[in-house]
Amino acid sequence: MVVALPETEPQVASILKVCHAMQVPVVPRGAGTGLSGGALPSGHGVLLGMAKFNRILAIDARARLARVQPGVRNAAISEAAAPLGLYYAPDPSSQIACTIGGNLAENSGGVHCLKYGLTVHNVLRLRGYTVEGEPVQFGSEALDSPGFDLLALAIGSEGMLAVTVEASVRLVPKPHTARVIMASFDDVETAGNAVADVIAAGIIPAGLEMMDKPATHAVEEFVHAGYDLDAAAILLCESDGTSEEVEEEIGRMKAVLSASGATQLRVSGNESERVRFWAGRKAAFPAVGRISPDYYCMDGTIPRKRLGEILRFIAEMELKYGLRCPNVFHAGDGNLHPLILFDANDPGQLQRTESFAAEVLEKCVAVGGTITGEHGVGIEKINQMCVQFGSAELEAFMQVKRAFDPSMLLNPGKNVPTLHRCAEYGRMHVRGGQLPFADLPRF
Amino acid sequence: MVVALPETEPQVASILKVCHAMQVPVVPRGAGTGLSGGALPSGHGVLLGMAKFNRILAIDARARLARVQPGVRNAAISEAAAPLGLYYAPDPSSQIACTIGGNLAENSGGVHCLKYGLTVHNVLRLRGYTVEGEPVQFGSEALDSPGFDLLALAIGSEGMLAVTVEASVRLVPKPHTARVIMASFDDVETAGNAVADVIAAGIIPAGLEMMDKPATHAVEEFVHAGYDLDAAAILLCESDGTSEEVEEEIGRMKAVLSASGATQLRVSGNESERVRFWAGRKAAFPAVGRISPDYYCMDGTIPRKRLGEILRFIAEMELKYGLRCPNVFHAGDGNLHPLILFDANDPGQLQRTESFAAEVLEKCVAVGGTITGEHGVGIEKINQMCVQFGSAELEAFMQVKRAFDPSMLLNPGKNVPTLHRCAEYGRMHVRGGQLPFADLPRF
Repeated sequence: MVVALPETEPQVASILKVCHAMQVPVVPRGAGTGLSGGALPSGHGVLLGMAKFNRILAIDARARLARVQPGVRNAAISEAAAPLGLYYAPDPSSQIACTIGGNLAENSGGVHCLKYGLTVHNVLRLRGYTVEGEPVQFGSEALDSPGFDLLALAIGSEGMLAVTVEASVRLVPKPHTARVIMASFDDVETAGNAVADVIAAGIIPAGLEMMDKPATHAVEEFVHAGYDLDAAAILLCESDGTSEEVEEEIGRMKAVLSASGATQLRVSGNESERVRFWAGRKAAFPAVGRISPDYYCMDGTIPRKRLGEILRFIAEMELKYGLRCPNVFHAGDGNLHPLILFDANDPGQLQRTESFAAEVLEKCVAVGGTITGEHGVGIEKINQMCVQFGSAELEAFMQVKRAFDPSMLLNPGKNVPTLHRCAEYGRMHVRGGQLPFADLPRF
Repeated sequence: MVVALPETEPQVASILKVCHAMQVPVVPRGAGTGLSGGALPSGHGVLLGMAKFNRILAIDARARLARVQPGVRNAAISEAAAPLGLYYAPDPSSQIACTIGGNLAENSGGVHCLKYGLTVHNVLRLRGYTVEGEPVQFGSEALDSPGFDLLALAIGSEGMLAVTVEASVRLVPKPHTARVIMASFDDVETAGNAVADVIAAGIIPAGLEMMDKPATHAVEEFVHAGYDLDAAAILLCESDGTSEEVEEEIGRMKAVLSASGATQLRVSGNESERVRFWAGRKAAFPAVGRISPDYYCMDGTIPRKRLGEILRFIAEMELKYGLRCPNVFHAGDGNLHPLILFDANDPGQLQRTESFAAEVLEKCVAVGGTITGEHGVGIEKINQMCVQFGSAELEAFMQVKRAFDPSMLLNPGKNVPTLHRCAEYGRMHVRGGQLPFADLPRF
C-alpha cells in the first residue's frame, strides 16, 4: 500500500502508533535479500523500510562488541572492526548486501556457524519498539539472564514481535591463521559419514562444507577453484586459530578423513589457495544460476548421521520430478542447501519444483530434522510448519504472537501458520500415495 | 499443601490436568539446591517433585548428545559420558547434587561458562507438558530455527511456562589437557582491569576467576590450596585443549597478565596442582561458612570494564552496613558472587544484609549489568526486576506468561513481578537519600 522510510526513532514510533490506531499491518524490511519471503510486503499494509538506519554507533574493543543500527550491512560491521583485529562471526553468503536487521529477523547463519554459532549466539542486546510504538529492550551488554529470554525470542521472529532500531553484537578476534583441507570421496554417503566422524572425534572445524559432483562441476567452470572433478563429493574442512593450533588440528582432521575413506586430501598451502577453495563454495549459487534459467535454493536440517539417507532421497526425487538438483551443504551443522534447477517459462516446472522442495523438507522432519536452518520460514515454508509441529506447539507460537501483537499487525501471515491453515493443508496433503504429491494444490 | 512425586509421564499429565481443573498452583522442583528460592513451595499449591525422573535415557557419541530425565544430577551426565571421552560442560558449584531440571529452570552457569556457555547454549531439545497437561516439545536434536525460539524461552523460565520431562543436552569432548595460572595483584582494581585485558587480547580462557584477600584467607585455612596470601586479589586463568594449544595459550595469557600488573604468576605444574588451585575456588562458599554463622551469596553481573568500580562500591557498603563481604567472581563473565557475612541470631543483621544485597544488585543495573548471572530471580530478586526493567518489558514478560499459563498456576509469584508489585516497591524505595535504605520495609 505504501512504503515508509523513517530516519529517526521518533518517526518509527509514530509510524507504529498511527498504524496501530488504524489497525494497518506493518512489514519491517531490511535489504530484502531473504530467501523465504519473510520481508515481502503486504497488499493491505505499510512496508517499514529500515534502510536509513545505517549507522555504526560504536565499536568497543574492550567489551568486544559493536552497537549498530539495523540497516547496517553484515560485512560492514567486520570492516569497521578490522583495524582492531576483531570481526562479526555470522557470515551468510549474502553478507556484502544483507543487513543486520534481516539477519536478526531470520536468525541467519553462514559457513562459520558450526564453530561460531548463529545470529542468536552473537547478539547481546536489542532495542526497539512494540507494535503500539512503545520503546522496549531485550537482553543487555552484560551477561544476562533475568526473566524470560525475550532476546532469543525476538531473534528469528521475522519482525512479528517488535521492530528493532539498535543491536549490540558480539565481536570475536580474527584468527591468526587458517587452513582448509579439500577431501575427495568416491560416493556421497561415505562423505556424509566422514562429516559425522570428524565431529564425533571431538573436532569443531571453523567450517565443514560438502558439495556433490553436479555442484563442483557447475562451480569449477565458473570460478576455477581447483576442485577434484572426479570425486563424487568433496568436503572443505577448515581450522583456524594460532599457527600451532591449526597445524595440530589439521593433522587430526586429516587422520579422521583418511580413516573415513577420503580418496584424496589437499591442504591449502597459502592464504590465496585457501581463499580460492572457499571462493568456489561461496559462488555455488551464482554458478548454478549459469547452468539453469532458474533455481530454487532450499534450506533444511537433519541429524548429521542421516546425511547419506537424505542424499539418496534427493536422488530419487530428481528422477520422480525430472529435475536436476546439485547439493551444497553446511555439512557440519547438518544444514542442507539443495538447489533445484528449473525453467519458470516451462509451465508445470515451478509447480514440480515446489512439490520436490516440499517433499525434501518433510523428509527432513521425518528423519528428525527441521524445515529451516538459517533462511527462516517466511511465507515459503509456512505449510511445512504444520508438518514440523503439532497443534500444542503451533498454539504456543500463536499465543506468543498474541502476547506481543494481539491484533496481528506485525508482518502478518509469515512464520507461524494458523491452526485453520494447517487443517486445510492436512486435508489437501493426503499421505501414503492416494494422490501424487505433484498434483496437489499449493498455497 | 501437598507433595506429588510422579514416576511416569501419564502421572505428570494427570497431576497437571487435575490441578488445572481445580485451579490449584503447581510448583515444579528438582533437588532444591537453587539459591534464589525459585523452587520454594506455595502454601496453597502442589509441589511437583521430579526426583523420580532420574534416568539417563541415551548417550549418543556420534550426535554428541545425551537424552536425560530432569531428575538426573548434573554431574551424573558427565560421569555417564566419560567412557566416551565426552562431558556436559555447564558446571555449577552444586553439580554433585543439583539436577538438570533445576539447571534448565534457572539457566545455570559455572566456572567454565565463559568458554562453553550457560545451560541455554548446551541444550538442544526439551519435552514436557503444558499447564493443561498437554504434551509439548521445544527445539530439536538437529540444528533448529523454525518459528519462535521457544526452547530459549523455556530455559531459565523457572518452571512458569511448562513442566519438563526430558532434555537432550549437548556433550563436548573432554580436553586432552588443562593448565591454570594463579596471578597475584596488589589491588583489586588492577586485577579487575587485567581480566578485561585478557578478554580484549582475544583469549577465551576455559575459566577466569577472581578472589579477593578476605576470600583467599578464608579458603586457605580450609583447603590449603596454596594461594598467595599477600596478594590483594588473585586470578585463576585456565587454558584447556591439546597440549600444543595449551602451551601456546598459557604463554599469551602470562604475557597479558604481566603487562597488566600481575606481581607474581604461578602455572600449575601437573594435574594435581591444577585441581588443588581449583579446589580452593570451588570451596569458597563452605569456607566462608566456617568463619561466619551465616552468609548470603549474591549473584549479579556487570560489564567487565566496571569490575574495579563495583569492588569499590562493595567496600563502601561494608562500612555502611557494618558487615564483611569477601568476593569471588566468575570474572571473565563479569558475574559477581559477593558473600555477605552475618549472624541471623543478631536481630537486624539479616535485614541489613538484604539491604546491602539490594544496593549491590541495583548498582549492577546502574553500571549496565543485570541482577542475576546464573542463579535466577526466584523470589529473592523479584523486587530488583522492577529496577532492571521498565514497564514495557515487564508487561512483555507478563504477556508471555499469560500466553502459556493464563490462570497463573505454574510457580506463581516467582521470576516476574506484577506491575502492581513494582509500583509498591517504587513507592517504598525512595532514591536520593530521603530515607536510609536500611530503614525501608522489605517484601
